[in-house]
Amino acid sequence: MRTVAVRNIERADAAVVEALGTLGVATIHEALGRSGLLKPYMRPIYRHARVAGSAITVLALPGDNWMLHVAIELCRPGDVLVVACTTDNTDGMFGDLLATSARARGVKGLVIDAGVRDVATLEDMGFPVWSKAVSAQGTVKNTPGSVNVPIVCAGQAVNPGDVVVADDDGVVVIPKHRAESAMAAARTREQNEAEKREKLANGISGLDMYDMRPRLEKAGLIYLDSLEDLTD
Amino acid sequence: MRTVAVRNIERADAAVVEALGTLGVATIHEALGRSGLLKPYMRPIYRHARVAGSAITVLALPGDNWMLHVAIELCRPGDVLVVACTTDNTDGMFGDLLATSARARGVKGLVIDAGVRDVATLEDMGFPVWSKAVSAQGTVKNTPGSVNVPIVCAGQAVNPGDVVVADDDGVVVIPKHRAESAMAAARTREQNEAEKREKLANGISGLDMYDMRPRLEKAGLIYLDSLEDLTD
Amino acid sequence: MRTVAVRNIERADAAVVEALGTLGVATIHEALGRSGLLKPYMRPIYRHARVAGSAITVLALPGDNWMLHVAIELCRPGDVLVVACTTDNTDGMFGDLLATSARARGVKGLVIDAGVRDVATLEDMGFPVWSKAVSAQGTVKNTPGSVNVPIVCAGQAVNPGDVVVADDDGVVVIPKHRAESAMAAARTREQNEAEKREKLANGISGLDMYDMRPRLEKAGLIYLDSLEDLTD
Amino acid sequence: MRTVAVRNIERADAAVVEALGTLGVATIHEALGRSGLLKPYMRPIYRHARVAGSAITVLALPGDNWMLHVAIELCRPGDVLVVACTTDNTDGMFGDLLATSARARGVKGLVIDAGVRDVATLEDMGFPVWSKAVSAQGTVKNTPGSVNVPIVCAGQAVNPGDVVVADDDGVVVIPKHRAESAMAAARTREQNEAEKREKLANGISGLDMYDMRPRLEKAGLIYLDSLEDLTD
Amino acid sequence: MRTVAVRNIERADAAVVEALGTLGVATIHEALGRSGLLKPYMRPIYRHARVAGSAITVLALPGDNWMLHVAIELCRPGDVLVVACTTDNTDGMFGDLLATSARARGVKGLVIDAGVRDVATLEDMGFPVWSKAVSAQGTVKNTPGSVNVPIVCAGQAVNPGDVVVADDDGVVVIPKHRAESAMAAARTREQNEAEKREKLANGISGLDMYDMRPRLEKAGLIYLDSLEDLTD
Amino acid sequence: MRTVAVRNIERADAAVVEALGTLGVATIHEALGRSGLLKPYMRPIYRHARVAGSAITVLALPGDNWMLHVAIELCRPGDVLVVACTTDNTDGMFGDLLATSARARGVKGLVIDAGVRDVATLEDMGFPVWSKAVSAQGTVKNTPGSVNVPIVCAGQAVNPGDVVVADDDGVVVIPKHRAESAMAAARTREQNEAEKREKLANGISGLDMYDMRPRLEKAGLIYLDSLEDLTD
Repeated sequence: MRTVAVRNIERADAAVVEALGTLGVATIHEALGRSGLLKPYMRPIYRHARVAGSAITVLALPGDNWMLHVAIELCRPGDVLVVACTTDNTDGMFGDLLATSARARGVKGLVIDAGVRDVATLEDMGFPVWSKAVSAQGTVKNTPGSVNVPIVCAGQAVNPGDVVVADDDGVVVIPKHRAESAMAAARTREQNEAEKREKLANGISGLDMYDMRPRLEKAGLIYLDSLEDLTD
Repeated sequence: MRTVAVRNIERADAAVVEALGTLGVATIHEALGRSGLLKPYMRPIYRHARVAGSAITVLALPGDNWMLHVAIELCRPGDVLVVACTTDNTDGMFGDLLATSARARGVKGLVIDAGVRDVATLEDMGFPVWSKAVSAQGTVKNTPGSVNVPIVCAGQAVNPGDVVVADDDGVVVIPKHRAESAMAAARTREQNEAEKREKLANGISGLDMYDMRPRLEKAGLIYLDSLEDLTD
Repeated sequence: MRTVAVRNIERADAAVVEALGTLGVATIHEALGRSGLLKPYMRPIYRHARVAGSAITVLALPGDNWMLHVAIELCRPGDVLVVACTTDNTDGMFGDLLATSARARGVKGLVIDAGVRDVATLEDMGFPVWSKAVSAQGTVKNTPGSVNVPIVCAGQAVNPGDVVVADDDGVVVIPKHRAESAMAAARTREQNEAEKREKLANGISGLDMYDMRPRLEKAGLIYLDSLEDLTD
Repeated sequence: MRTVAVRNIERADAAVVEALGTLGVATIHEALGRSGLLKPYMRPIYRHARVAGSAITVLALPGDNWMLHVAIELCRPGDVLVVACTTDNTDGMFGDLLATSARARGVKGLVIDAGVRDVATLEDMGFPVWSKAVSAQGTVKNTPGSVNVPIVCAGQAVNPGDVVVADDDGVVVIPKHRAESAMAAARTREQNEAEKREKLANGISGLDMYDMRPRLEKAGLIYLDSLEDLTD
Repeated sequence: MRTVAVRNIERADAAVVEALGTLGVATIHEALGRSGLLKPYMRPIYRHARVAGSAITVLALPGDNWMLHVAIELCRPGDVLVVACTTDNTDGMFGDLLATSARARGVKGLVIDAGVRDVATLEDMGFPVWSKAVSAQGTVKNTPGSVNVPIVCAGQAVNPGDVVVADDDGVVVIPKHRAESAMAAARTREQNEAEKREKLANGISGLDMYDMRPRLEKAGLIYLDSLEDLTD
Repeated sequence: MRTVAVRNIERADAAVVEALGTLGVATIHEALGRSGLLKPYMRPIYRHARVAGSAITVLALPGDNWMLHVAIELCRPGDVLVVACTTDNTDGMFGDLLATSARARGVKGLVIDAGVRDVATLEDMGFPVWSKAVSAQGTVKNTPGSVNVPIVCAGQAVNPGDVVVADDDGVVVIPKHRAESAMAAARTREQNEAEKREKLANGISGLDMYDMRPRLEKAGLIYLDSLEDLTD
């Protein structure tokens, strides 16, 4: 495959992206029919970080961060860098200099299936990152990869321009053509949850609220008075 | 094995549970003869959380949190949910709705050999969780497991009603019939440590305080003046 | 190999060690020609800890912390304990008592390719630790290892007296005979970075600042206007 | 907990153990209601090994194989050694000398949640082993554990005298009081499978044979003629 | 996302698939510009297995193999089942009954990012499988997934009808529209390699054959006569 | 650190290397005082491979096998390539072409803390490899590392010219200045084991043969007649 950098990509509507950013990752993931989630080893480098933006995708080689420099130039305000490696790697591909450069172009954060460094500075800057590792390991700039091509990042297919939302629970990717419907479905879900939360807080059992008892019985669940009643 | 939910379990004395909660996990584990510890991949979702309670055990299937709803109804104030899966799984089986429901029944916390989500909200609620992963991954409610049967959670056998204590160092399980003796032994140990701490703070060597020199010599340890004196 | 404890080791100049402590791990690692870094699974037990000191090396057996007691007696103010195990192990080999004893001798911190416990107390004490795991698992004192011999800790060769610097990004080891040149190179690098940071903050592209465009072109990178232009 | 070795244990009927040995691990696991399986990292050291026997349980400390010597003396013909460690360990706790000693007492094989060595010799001897690792790492004999106490081995609770069956698919433990019923259920299952196998070999769809179509439809499965018909 | 099964998919030309099957995975991967490879944890269950076929894709839920039954009915001779899970799972989703059913429909093999069981029987049948794990763990049939939708399997995006080739080195996926060009490029590569192999066998250095010396020198490589000449 | 290739290294005596090759890895590791072993994730690509030779050390960058070409030219008959990476990597850095080139120079085998490919061909050639992974992933030749410098491979420090011995149990490294004494000690050990093996085969308990009973009693081991006698 050729090494390419694609200049122009289609992004979701900015207002929709912003609205998705007000919703939680878990809620959006549910609204997408339980899809779109990156693997749970992707963790924020500091607590209570949140981000929503359009994905600029990067395919890098292990131990080589050259393409990140190429990608940043192609970013617009509101974008989020999403970086995959051709093979598993934890090197510190991104640090405070790249963050400074990215911020100057309006980049809102980074999702990287590799390592990141200068994490104390990134926290001071308020530049949010979700990564597989924290590592000071330096990288080279010798082998080009690609920018704004379809990638697989932490087990999830991501296309350039897809919406990325991340919080303490992880990272979810919303295909851009589904962004608006996902937003609507997530809002509905959020409203329903408020109602449920109140019922549960008042002590109503989930078994009653969700009407689970008949299904549980049909599935074979048996209540015993005590452990002594348990036979094989 | 049948899928069952056991309604009534024997719990340790509430005062003993409370007393154990004032002692650290490491101290209790030592007092138990260095047993009872869950594997160290079980980590708190926020710092400085602490909990002590009686175990309501849950055996769930991977990607299915149905049994958690069944379990919460069987909880009493002071209980801690302890969840194992039939096979390794990191899905987000528990979130803020279940936490709200659990809290309404007096549940004090969760220990889960799987994933948890809505962690920012759980921290805001002050609902402590020790888990294998943080993951927004949604789960289904299609296959029943069991509640209040003996389980193995993170490498440790847990029976319903056993005492669970957890802090920043991890999670320890105390068999309910050993709760009182463990409490006494842990207290003694804690008192001894205070004395030792003072001696060590004053610069007394551990080798002298523990009278280790003769045993070390007998075990073959040789002191050399410099690395150059080292031959094979 | 015999089990030995070496009393006297050569240390780097104290002023150089202190100066290295003012520089970041990533910067020093780069100044060393991208070498010296421990594997990224070595993480601090609390955020924003920093340490620099001379390595007192410890080779311990799995589940046995006897040698740590031997090592502490051989420490001087400004030293950092660096602990390796003969085989992979996550047991809690070090806790608040050993930290109290170490501090009484002026030890500044711990780097351990194993587990640590009492982490809340260690944080209260401000005693920094980088470890592979947090675990309350207790250890025995039955098999001696060695102190102040060459070890491999988390993938990195460490000699007694080498300089160890650690921060949020991880741990780097500087061979003692390279400490002074590393300090100088790291300072130079830090100064260069300040200049670069300003340029990047002003929106200058890294591709221009580093003059990367000709090399990228030569390496085969092709710019496309849109993803539709991508053929295999 | 005291370090103990229990001399006499109850074993399942020898004929039942032998009969279970003619059935596959997967079949027995299903017959037990899908329980009893050790984690899948437990692998045979050579292909097509099979064993069935009564468990002599061993709890060892990491890097210490002392208790294996104690255990072998307590074995009888037809027993299988089942070894757990107090913490994760991959050291080579068992090799050709211990195998020679075990075989002299009629031991049929080894299941060990740690490492094993001399694997070429063990294969030549036809002494089957299921382990977590192959490792030449030598161990000490300094800290006693226990023999014939309840243990957790590779995620599964094992009591002394339980029946252990292992083959290329892994290891299953059958509680001794369930051995006879498990044997019967497994035989029934095996017979049913023969019939099913023939139907499937003749091209009958599993969907028809198991009458799955109505349940699938009820569960929401929709058939589409082509991928183009897929909307979110 | 809805749970769907797509009946008709486009496949690559059968002759091209067959031709690809005569080429090695490494060669094809190189011919694809070093892309298409599944992660290396995907291993064959027996040595020297080989397969090439058209992918029938399956998205299953953890611990639930229902969709495999649905998928087999949609297979044609020459197909290969490629199974992904919504979250990481090692359960034994496939065994000898499913293999019998698959073989009756002409399925040539299985690639599964989960577990497989009855591996001895599968080897006897000559039914090749590449999997993440071998595990006897049984699964349920309670939650439907999808068949013949785009999936990510072991880090690689796979579309229904893509060509899958697997051997001892792992698994490679060739997008169906690139199958013919990949075949041609792989053949050319294979021919070139024969020539190179002969030169290398005759003792010609790779440095000369690939004309690497000038590039190495330019990249900074320095030859030293002995290790003593090495300074930092 | 500069990128260098050292032409001349000191090797151990060829007869000693050969003699070490007739001894097992476990025996040599014990004779070295239980040192020198690489981590157990290093596995042979085919069963019953054996090798002994002088280490030509290679430090490569992740995903880049350039230095292997440089290293092979510096090999002499009887050498073994020992490859480390600057960071964790599983790419297929070595395949049949490099093996052909290596064999033409008399190289006896490969130990690589990374991946290897063309494993079926390597087995056909009888070229033994111990590696961390099997992977077809192709690598680049863009960033030079070093040859014949001290490295850390799979957790073990290796110097150029050290003796490497590998078999089914793993890989052991013998410092060249200890090769002769290790050979002598290993032979003695091997002879002692023959005697012990015979005793154990005749049913003598290891507890008696090693005179362990008094030490076990002193260490606190208590024999119980039955599990019912076990109290905490």
